[in-house]
Amino acid sequence: MNRRMILYLICQILRIEAVTMIPAAVIAIVQKEYPSLIGFIFAMLAMGGVSLLSAAFRVRKKEIYARDGFLTVSLAWIAVSLFGALPFWISGEIPNFIDCIFETVSGFTTTGASVVQNVEALPMSLLYWRSFTHWLGGMGVLVFLLAIIPIMKGKSTLVHLLRAESPGPSVEKLAPKLHQTAKILYGIYIALTMVQILILLAGGMPLFDSVTTSFATAGTGGFAIKNDSMAGYSPFQQGVVTVFMALFGVNFNIFYLLLLRQFSRVFRNQELRLYLGTMIGAILLITWNVLPQFDWNPGTAAHHVAFTVSSVMTTTGFATVDFNQWPMFSKTILVILMIFGACAGSTGGGIKSIRVLILFKEAKRNIRKMLRPRSVSAIHVDGAKVDDEVVHGVHDYLTVYTIISIASLLLIAIDNFSMETSLTAVLACLNNIGPGLDLVGPMGNYACFSAGSKLILSLDMLIGRLEIFPMLMLAVPAAWKR
Amino acid sequence: MNRRMILYLICQILRIEAVTMIPAAVIAIVQKEYPSLIGFIFAMLAMGGVSLLSAAFRVRKKEIYARDGFLTVSLAWIAVSLFGALPFWISGEIPNFIDCIFETVSGFTTTGASVVQNVEALPMSLLYWRSFTHWLGGMGVLVFLLAIIPIMKGKSTLVHLLRAESPGPSVEKLAPKLHQTAKILYGIYIALTMVQILILLAGGMPLFDSVTTSFATAGTGGFAIKNDSMAGYSPFQQGVVTVFMALFGVNFNIFYLLLLRQFSRVFRNQELRLYLGTMIGAILLITWNVLPQFDWNPGTAAHHVAFTVSSVMTTTGFATVDFNQWPMFSKTILVILMIFGACAGSTGGGIKSIRVLILFKEAKRNIRKMLRPRSVSAIHVDGAKVDDEVVHGVHDYLTVYTIISIASLLLIAIDNFSMETSLTAVLACLNNIGPGLDLVGPMGNYACFSAGSKLILSLDMLIGRLEIFPMLMLAVPAAWKR
Repeated sequence: MNRRMILYLICQILRIEAVTMIPAAVIAIVQKEYPSLIGFIFAMLAMGGVSLLSAAFRVRKKEIYARDGFLTVSLAWIAVSLFGALPFWISGEIPNFIDCIFETVSGFTTTGASVVQNVEALPMSLLYWRSFTHWLGGMGVLVFLLAIIPIMKGKSTLVHLLRAESPGPSVEKLAPKLHQTAKILYGIYIALTMVQILILLAGGMPLFDSVTTSFATAGTGGFAIKNDSMAGYSPFQQGVVTVFMALFGVNFNIFYLLLLRQFSRVFRNQELRLYLGTMIGAILLITWNVLPQFDWNPGTAAHHVAFTVSSVMTTTGFATVDFNQWPMFSKTILVILMIFGACAGSTGGGIKSIRVLILFKEAKRNIRKMLRPRSVSAIHVDGAKVDDEVVHGVHDYLTVYTIISIASLLLIAIDNFSMETSLTAVLACLNNIGPGLDLVGPMGNYACFSAGSKLILSLDMLIGRLEIFPMLMLAVPAAWKR
Repeated sequence: MNRRMILYLICQILRIEAVTMIPAAVIAIVQKEYPSLIGFIFAMLAMGGVSLLSAAFRVRKKEIYARDGFLTVSLAWIAVSLFGALPFWISGEIPNFIDCIFETVSGFTTTGASVVQNVEALPMSLLYWRSFTHWLGGMGVLVFLLAIIPIMKGKSTLVHLLRAESPGPSVEKLAPKLHQTAKILYGIYIALTMVQILILLAGGMPLFDSVTTSFATAGTGGFAIKNDSMAGYSPFQQGVVTVFMALFGVNFNIFYLLLLRQFSRVFRNQELRLYLGTMIGAILLITWNVLPQFDWNPGTAAHHVAFTVSSVMTTTGFATVDFNQWPMFSKTILVILMIFGACAGSTGGGIKSIRVLILFKEAKRNIRKMLRPRSVSAIHVDGAKVDDEVVHGVHDYLTVYTIISIASLLLIAIDNFSMETSLTAVLACLNNIGPGLDLVGPMGNYACFSAGSKLILSLDMLIGRLEIFPMLMLAVPAAWKR
């Protein structure tokens, strides 16, 4: 374990977090929100002070290995969340520190689950910071670090960090150097966010709303600045968000291929096809099922269903209607979409379409094998053979995912809410969605849970965002050995 | 595909079913239940007639292969259920034929889910037949065939049938010949059932109640002859059932090892340890959780909790109390136990302790491998190395299990009952338990579901009892090729 290097990296990240807090502090000054301003200044001073520590020691060895990469990522995310929670707490807007942690973890992990019952009462600067955590967390704080500071030499170092933080079973290199890959990813991310802000502005949404909404869409987060989430906006504005949520759930490699004009590779991409096919199928089934609730108006029904499906499947969590009131068939589809999730390499959560694809293909292969025991076949995705090791990796991922879901459900159940509330709360946090059903439905929130449950759900959000193993490493004593 | 041999085997099995109906017919005569008597006679004639078909053709080749074994088992179970449903229908006691199928499939698969709202109104002969289906289905109709008729030569034939019908990832040979293994299994099964009948009689339970209760316990079925399940019996009688349910959830190889006095092998058996450990852990946790509901009386609480845990984990489904009224923490544990299930090679359902054991060990191995990527290790159960193929088999099993659960849940959800009802109905049928929670709780039943849902749940029961793949083969066109 390379302790100095890990500490050095965390200090760098906290320094970046302090810098990204400046716009929020400026808003606080302009809006004369002094308690919030004190919160931001104190938090920035704290992060600056801690990051000065890194000047106190010299990092001799700059190489880090796989397990150090996992530890760095986990510890960095915990540190970023703890310091990011300070403005909420110091300003007194969220009095309980555990609530502040829940809200901030929910922000950075792009979950969007909230304990704030009256969002509109929050000062603008805090609302901005809350939405900005989505944007920063969406693409990853370490990827950001890699994109702007070329501190580390040696490929192995970079790849371990990128792997640990990026969603999906494998990271494709877009450019020969990972440093460049990180830059390309953030470039696409910033460009798409800007486009969304401009379209929303053109559609008549106020600037502040456009920026915060776009931040939350880009990170597939879901924090809204209104109590009724997105219900109050115009159908055009809702439609724009529907499309952009779906876009941010797509693997960013696809956008890069589009830039390179490799359209045929985009068209044949099996994960993209499964993702869009599932989305369209779900929209059709649910629209048919909820038609009576929209006075048999297929246009209105399809509009709200498309928004909801796009929101839930990409794990964003915005709402235009209270889908908790829909029939059980629709709600069951939504729960399945929650687990299914978006594409790997996007800002969305869930177990990711590519894992579902591999699972289905593997199951099909094995049923065929039962009929012809001596047949030898491999599974292919996009024409390339999938290594057995990747397949087993997916299986192990789902085993641990299931164990963590069950353990969390059991602990949450002590609060004695309905099975629908407990189960969807765990799934909505572990898959970084935000709203679940029943008490934690789109018009409810997480304030009802006990402090213990809130901490467990916060842990689930981190576990889900970092795809389990980095967080798991924190609990393995061997990972901490020098 | 060896069509003649498959047909021949099914005819043999129907002949056996006709013979085992005789005691029920005798009860109908003694009790003067004439509509039921007509039902039994008609069913026996129908089965006899169909089985005469086998005399009309000669079976040239007596060897069958793996996929034929799967088809034989699936078709035999469907045939046995359809003919077994006739007495309920013809007697007019259950007017709807789909309800009759549901009830009979529930019997043979040892599920114990019922659509009969007033069980006590059923004639004794039908109650006897209903409980007897549990007993016959528990150990398996084909194993029974193998035990009494040495029709087939060649090991491969027998082993395919036994594998397809027996629960668990592998069948251990207890004797050099599988024919003898089947006899040993049924010998132990009959002996244990007799012991239970005698102890219940000694405890003051009437003969009819003792026999039917023991049948339902032995098969881990759960059909009771009283509307309040086992609530009306004495604590001693309930205690006896608690112990015997737990016993019938143990791998029958363990009893054979006990007969051979190989006590140390029994003591070291890891599946048995996990099974009993989980059971005891669950009893302690739930007892602590429900103590207030039993007026803080730990003795009474532990008595009913032990009964419930034993009933749910072995997938029997008897009840002494309405555990649907327990707090969510306890109910969540019960749902986990429903999926967990009993040991492989027992009459119980669920995914089986051995699979859970392999899953845990595999996940642990892989986390270790992440820390030391170059380490090579295998997992061991009871000191023997577990082949990679068995591990992957467990993963594939769970993938298909999950897909079937989700698909069933989606279709059941169309009936628009609560998530708790829909989810636990699917789990209770797929894992052959019987009662779930909410509307299908121990004091509710399955009468509320639509005909379509009842058929899907019947299919789930068969899929669960035959451990998925045999039933899946029915849907694969390639399995039907000559």
